[in-house]
This record gives sequence, C-alpha cells and structure tokens, in this order.
Amino acid sequence: MKSKLGPQRIMFPLPTALVVAGNMERSNIITIAWINMLTGLPPTLGVSIGSKGYSAELIKKNKDFSVNLASVEIMREADFCGITSGEEVDKFSATGLTKIPSDKIHSPIIQECPVNIECKLVETRMTGRTHQLVGEILQTHVDEDKIRDTKRPDSIDILSINPLIYYSRAREYWALGRKVGDAYKIGYELKQRND
Amino acid sequence: MKSKLGPQRIMFPLPTALVVAGNMERSNIITIAWINMLTGLPPTLGVSIGSKGYSAELIKKNKDFSVNLASVEIMREADFCGITSGEEVDKFSATGLTKIPSDKIHSPIIQECPVNIECKLVETRMTGRTHQLVGEILQTHVDEDKIRDTKRPDSIDILSINPLIYYSRAREYWALGRKVGDAYKIGYELKQRND
Repeated sequence: MKSKLGPQRIMFPLPTALVVAGNMERSNIITIAWINMLTGLPPTLGVSIGSKGYSAELIKKNKDFSVNLASVEIMREADFCGITSGEEVDKFSATGLTKIPSDKIHSPIIQECPVNIECKLVETRMTGRTHQLVGEILQTHVDEDKIRDTKRPDSIDILSINPLIYYSRAREYWALGRKVGDAYKIGYELKQRND
Repeated sequence: MKSKLGPQRIMFPLPTALVVAGNMERSNIITIAWINMLTGLPPTLGVSIGSKGYSAELIKKNKDFSVNLASVEIMREADFCGITSGEEVDKFSATGLTKIPSDKIHSPIIQECPVNIECKLVETRMTGRTHQLVGEILQTHVDEDKIRDTKRPDSIDILSINPLIYYSRAREYWALGRKVGDAYKIGYELKQRND
C-alpha cells in the first residue's frame, strides 16, 4: 500500500556541495544540495539558491563560482556553512577551511574538498522565488591520491572520496555504502532477452 | 596535490529516477540521474533529458510525468530502461514493472518504486542541446511500510527505501551506507563558538 503525502520536496540521495563565490581576499561558502548537471556539451551544472540571500547577489556580481564536493570528514564545516550567513561571518576563518586559487575563475576552491569544479556563470533562471545559477564548467580538480589514473576521469575512487550524502527531507547526512552493480551492463541481459 | 582534469561532468552521489510519461494504455520509462529540486514553493523539480529522444517529445505532448525513485531491488530494470528506447520496446512489459494510476496526472506511477512523485510540466528550458523539464509536484506517494508516521513526510525510513545511488562518471550503482550526522545540528557547536 502507498501513502499519499501531497506535494512534497522529496529527492534523495543528494550531494553536499560547498559553493564558493568571491576572490582570494574575500569570499563566501554556501552549502547546497539542490545541484546537478544540466548538459554534458559543454559540461554545465545548475545550482538552486534562494534569490534573497547574500550569496546569490555575490555570484551574480562576480560572474563565477566554484563547486566543491564535501566529504564526510568535513561534515561539521559543511553544515556550519549551511546554517550561517556570509554577511555575518567569514566562513573560511570560522571553519578553518583553506582557500586556494582557481585556475580559470576568480572564486577560489576549497583545499579540503576532494573534488573542485570551476564554473563561469552563463545564465540565471527563476523558478518561483528560487534562482537557478547555470554554470559552465571550465576546470575540474581531484585530489591526486583519490584517482587511480589521472588520464582517466572515470577512475576516481568514490570510496576514498567518501562523499557526504544529504537526505534533505529528514535533514540527515549519510555515507556511501557498497557498490551494487555496473550501469549499462547489469540491464543488458534483459535487453538481449527483448532484442 | 590536486590533479586538473579539464571540463568534466562529475557530480555524485545522484538518485536513480524512473521518469514515466504517457497514460495507463501506453507509456514509457526513462532512467534519469540528472534530476533535482528547483524550488520548494511550490515544490518543483527539474529533469535534464536529451532533446532528441522519444521521451522528451512524449512529455512535451503529454504535459505531465511521474518521477519514481528506484531502489537497489530493481537495479536491473532501472538500468534496462536507461539503455533502451521506448520507440523500440514497451519497457513496462519488458521489465515486468507494474503501472498504477496516478492521482492528479495522466502518466502512471510505478508500483515497485518506493517513492512516486506526480509532476505537471510547467516549463521547458534548454541548456545547450539538453532539455530541462520543469515539473510542479502535485502529489507524492510513499510505500506505507517505509514511513514511520504517514503524517510526517520527514519520517521516511531511507534505509528501508534502499535507494539506488548513481555514480555517473564511472557508470556505477551504489547502495547507501550509514547515517553520519544530523544537518542543522552538527555544525551548531561551531556556530555558537562564532556567535
């Protein structure tokens, strides 16, 4: 039996991303789970963010931002950046997270995050009162010790990345479990049976 | 040390969603990981989908779709729906997944998925050659035995849901691990120190 819950905002699992806007002198960190790829050509992602906040304004002024995927190791810092405002606190000094220069954009990336994505703001869309910042990806950094072959971006060792997973409806953080199968393969037998 | 990989489409972890478009007589299932919430008021989500496919056309004609979150139990069926075209095969009969009527829309929902979200198409956006279908959520269904209190949508037991997690860059499916912390709480101590 299924239970009807009405219109809800239920989506899981989600990544926990630390979005940085600013420059090496002054920048802010916001924690975002409502983020995903929009297209692969060119690689472009979308970040949903309240239109009234300090960060949305900063990104629109700045025209770029970095997306830094959080690991379980920095859960406290990630959560802190989600419950505080950059108008009131310098989140880099409060958390001790380390800003390092980006390659292609003004906004810095976060050393402690295993994956860092540099984005140029190419469009701002509205859904209700929420912005969607559309960012074309210009550069990607991955911790060298967490990738098996730096020539193969698909060889990132997701277990050693230890991504911080967000379950938004219950406001819970989770860790990744075990690999259960290979996509584009596990359904293939069923495909052959139907070909 | 960090390794520069250039512009990449790296985002994880992602949900594995089965998107259904059509009606009780004829409908198609597509597997999508590029999906997330766009706003909470009213609850609205975005689905990224190739603009040339059969399903994008079906949804635009149909004006609604359902989003059905896949569990590890139906990994094979989910993968199959991602590697086949609805023009060539009836995915409901090929997989044995059960279509049941929605409450508010024409497109059916999938019995075997623990969470089902009914969406009305309210906008179609383009990023490069990829559509983003914007769906306002009209109804949400959750398996009764996977929610502790049907009056509290935040009481969904995510472990019993056993969500199928997608790691797109490596084309791998993963299961959820353990809960590691409570959001809006675990960063609070750091906040008090800075207040």
